[in-house]
Amino acid sequence: MDKIFRVDMSKLTTSIEDVPAKWAGLGGRALTSTIVAEEVVPTCHPLGPNNKLVFAPGLLSGTAAANSGRMSCGAKSPLTGTIKESNAGGTSAQQFARMGIKALIIEGLPKDDKWYGLHLTKDGATIVAADDLAGKGNFAVIEALEAKLGKKTGVVTIGPAGEMKMAMANISVKDPDSKIRSHGRGGLGAVMGSKKIKYISIDSEGAPGVTVADPEKFKQAARTFAKALLDHPVSGEGLPTYGTNVLVNILHEAGGLPTRNFTLGQFDGHDKICGETMHDTIVKRGGKPKHGCHAGCIIQCSQVYLNEQGKYVTSGFEYETIWGMGANCCIDNLDDIAEADNIMDDIGVDSIESAVMFGVAMEAGILPFGDGKGVIRLLGEIGKGTALGRILGGGTGHVGKAYGVTRVPVVKNQGIPAYDPRSVKGIGITYATSTMGADHTAGYTIATNILNVGGYVDPLKKDGQVELSRNLQIATAAVDSTGMCIFVAFPALDIPECLPALIDMINARFGINLTGDDVTNLGKSILKIERQFNIEAGFTNKDDRLPEFFNFEPVPPHNVVWDFSDEEIDAFWNF
Amino acid sequence: MDKIFRVDMSKLTTSIEDVPAKWAGLGGRALTSTIVAEEVVPTCHPLGPNNKLVFAPGLLSGTAAANSGRMSCGAKSPLTGTIKESNAGGTSAQQFARMGIKALIIEGLPKDDKWYGLHLTKDGATIVAADDLAGKGNFAVIEALEAKLGKKTGVVTIGPAGEMKMAMANISVKDPDSKIRSHGRGGLGAVMGSKKIKYISIDSEGAPGVTVADPEKFKQAARTFAKALLDHPVSGEGLPTYGTNVLVNILHEAGGLPTRNFTLGQFDGHDKICGETMHDTIVKRGGKPKHGCHAGCIIQCSQVYLNEQGKYVTSGFEYETIWGMGANCCIDNLDDIAEADNIMDDIGVDSIESAVMFGVAMEAGILPFGDGKGVIRLLGEIGKGTALGRILGGGTGHVGKAYGVTRVPVVKNQGIPAYDPRSVKGIGITYATSTMGADHTAGYTIATNILNVGGYVDPLKKDGQVELSRNLQIATAAVDSTGMCIFVAFPALDIPECLPALIDMINARFGINLTGDDVTNLGKSILKIERQFNIEAGFTNKDDRLPEFFNFEPVPPHNVVWDFSDEEIDAFWNF
Repeated sequence: MDKIFRVDMSKLTTSIEDVPAKWAGLGGRALTSTIVAEEVVPTCHPLGPNNKLVFAPGLLSGTAAANSGRMSCGAKSPLTGTIKESNAGGTSAQQFARMGIKALIIEGLPKDDKWYGLHLTKDGATIVAADDLAGKGNFAVIEALEAKLGKKTGVVTIGPAGEMKMAMANISVKDPDSKIRSHGRGGLGAVMGSKKIKYISIDSEGAPGVTVADPEKFKQAARTFAKALLDHPVSGEGLPTYGTNVLVNILHEAGGLPTRNFTLGQFDGHDKICGETMHDTIVKRGGKPKHGCHAGCIIQCSQVYLNEQGKYVTSGFEYETIWGMGANCCIDNLDDIAEADNIMDDIGVDSIESAVMFGVAMEAGILPFGDGKGVIRLLGEIGKGTALGRILGGGTGHVGKAYGVTRVPVVKNQGIPAYDPRSVKGIGITYATSTMGADHTAGYTIATNILNVGGYVDPLKKDGQVELSRNLQIATAAVDSTGMCIFVAFPALDIPECLPALIDMINARFGINLTGDDVTNLGKSILKIERQFNIEAGFTNKDDRLPEFFNFEPVPPHNVVWDFSDEEIDAFWNF
Repeated sequence: MDKIFRVDMSKLTTSIEDVPAKWAGLGGRALTSTIVAEEVVPTCHPLGPNNKLVFAPGLLSGTAAANSGRMSCGAKSPLTGTIKESNAGGTSAQQFARMGIKALIIEGLPKDDKWYGLHLTKDGATIVAADDLAGKGNFAVIEALEAKLGKKTGVVTIGPAGEMKMAMANISVKDPDSKIRSHGRGGLGAVMGSKKIKYISIDSEGAPGVTVADPEKFKQAARTFAKALLDHPVSGEGLPTYGTNVLVNILHEAGGLPTRNFTLGQFDGHDKICGETMHDTIVKRGGKPKHGCHAGCIIQCSQVYLNEQGKYVTSGFEYETIWGMGANCCIDNLDDIAEADNIMDDIGVDSIESAVMFGVAMEAGILPFGDGKGVIRLLGEIGKGTALGRILGGGTGHVGKAYGVTRVPVVKNQGIPAYDPRSVKGIGITYATSTMGADHTAGYTIATNILNVGGYVDPLKKDGQVELSRNLQIATAAVDSTGMCIFVAFPALDIPECLPALIDMINARFGINLTGDDVTNLGKSILKIERQFNIEAGFTNKDDRLPEFFNFEPVPPHNVVWDFSDEEIDAFWNF
């Protein structure tokens, strides 16, 4: 029987609870958002005693289903003030699921100023002293815990940024190679830091594993599903070969690659940082062009990037990071960006928020555009918590406020990622309306606007964008609840057998009979629960807007502005 | 005929317009808030091209009415994101009124990066180059302009903080002694800085002066009004003798003197910083215990504070500054606080926001509580715009975010002033509901909660506080439109002839027949216009709340918490 693990950091106690019936059918984002909505006062201070940090594996995590190893983490976000779900790969989701941990809820704040670790076994959670690891980077934490607890131990950790409660601090998760995946967005590392938890170690020894109600049906569906993933040109070919960084050249061609802090739509240096160049560099240096973020991933869009001397630099080196440090900061040196990526993993900051933030920092004159070495140096200041580091660690909006910058690409104070909303209009609707603040993964219209997946909606026209974003956001909320990687959306949109196979796996796992409509309704209900939380926190439709500079600064080469009316945007919520 | 002076900084043009009929009966806050509500897009970036900065003297400014020399300045606030009106003494209101300038509206942003000055004469506004004064402190600007334009020139200026668009930058106004009064709250100096206007110089030579429709009636009413001011124990005796700093001991006794970043209600060092000590110190050193912020002030609550060597240190040395740097930062050295006050005047930051901010900075560990020399040093960093200075210059909420502090006393991101809302509950309603963010002057319930003016409402009980704050906020909005100093409220609340005399002066000035109800209705309509702007900017009743720590941290000595329900607070707006 699955259980809820609950940790009260005010009393320094832990408990195990039965799963309430109302939560039984939920997993991943559906569960974290439901728990946060039920248990967190929407107006609370995100770093105060009334916020809670919730981890929940997806409904299919721990099974043999391909790409099902994602973990959701939820709380009220210190960056946005909204509800937040951020999911990550790594080993923790599958461990949780096999150990029967439906969710881990961490509440309260300790009264003293010590650092703690949380050790999880199938029998419960134990709070342990962790002052010895305070101040350490994430790689050192993983190394220390593996040395102490064994190589198989799972690790969820925060770096110095999380300890310092910086609003762009993330939560790092050990991946199968003891490298790092991240609950990146929304500053959840600061929430973990506020609760004085440096790490969670996971010992899944003796875990009962996941029970599948109808193993034969599951196996059949899993096979169909995996085949669809491998058959689709994006998930079966583009992503495995070039990683997500395949997008640099595609977005450059489309004129939707935000460049020089969102003043241009194309980057002259795109050739030097694109997926093709990265692939060749990795191969030449003996790195791995393919790598999975969790066991059972068959897309393998990650990679291992080495330096010229053949030494490890980074993995999980994503398009959004490379776009952000690259085009948006005008840095055309991939090695500098890779080194920055490694430092961000180690100090524990969201690489998207950091990249968007550095664009604004360059606009503010803190460092010149194109200064890769300067970015590396300033990441060091963030890790040390110097005054400048504190400004930068607060994220894009915080830097904008500190320096009085007006070209600040954020929605609900979260940095706008790698796709210009003026020239890829569908994603602008997602940025504006997402319950999470600007988040491309919330409703990835790039699929249909740019990649011709699930049909085609002209990125430069307004027609159909609201519907596109709405359908994708609903579907994504549901997918984020299964533990599936978001890239299953590509085959799900194009290959007719894919989505039914996914639903069949859920039905076979739990012995239930969900229909496609049930899944859609789940997605809708998640979005509405999240939106209601935000409304009760004080958000209104005025927050569902892009920054005004998009309205009056045309972006080359198409020289288009953001031209949706308030009414058109607000129609998103008509469902 | 009064005129509207309009300056377009995008085109670098100026114009003179007739006063639209709908604005004819408005002045001060009524006029600035009306113009901002009509002409500024509520969702605009406060530092972007769509915000406007509006100055308007009060309806009685420029006349012989006692205490009528206040100038209102309005815009969308970079600190709060709300509409903002901040009024100040000095010489500008009377000059504007005598020159027939009903309002000055500054809009747009220059395309280049140069600094400009604005020179006003009765014939219009001229934009002049001002790069030579960029980076200069306010005292140096006043000195330079007096040297160039003569001693009589009026000056409105921003210091380095405004140039750097810091959210706690104020706008300084030359007073009759060439010292400084401030449009303090809400970061309006950053709006002026965003428009690249370093100063406004005012040459009122040949100004036509104010026409009074019924001089005899005016004279009679003015006499009655002035007598009421002088007869009331607060405005006629307490304030003239000890200045506003008379309140340190009173609030200490009441247990409502926020101390050590709002963790205590009494300050052990109160004797060393109180009004009585300050008065004796000023007298002993040969300073001036009485001083008016504008010509025609008969309360004279300002003073000139000298150091031990008898040299000028500061004037306009207010209770809220002394409370904030004193009790709230645990600094018991009045000379240090005076020096800090002088620096704040010079670099151009709001002394209330600064004081509340330093309490949070001390809580964050940036400097120790009680470190007066440290405050002086860090004010220097603000003036220089170091990284730490940028953090501090962003105000209380900004420092809280940069360092992950949860005890952050702000409402709508504006620092809570000198009266603890837990032990003086009426002022908590004002902080929560004011359209301006936390602002004691918006509805000064201290009068009735503590000073027994206008009756008595027990500060520790909830009964009657909402009505008290509502009535005072309505009355204050009206008074802020007359050019009157807020302290006329004391006699107005207690002496029956006072308020009718004030209305008679307005009627005599314009040849109209306002009744008391008309004035009340004006106050109500101003509040509603301001609130509507805020709603359109995205504010809701969730923003009308005090920070949650007031709910669960009792403040000694009464050990009370803030215990109003949401419904009780929201009832404020039932009028």
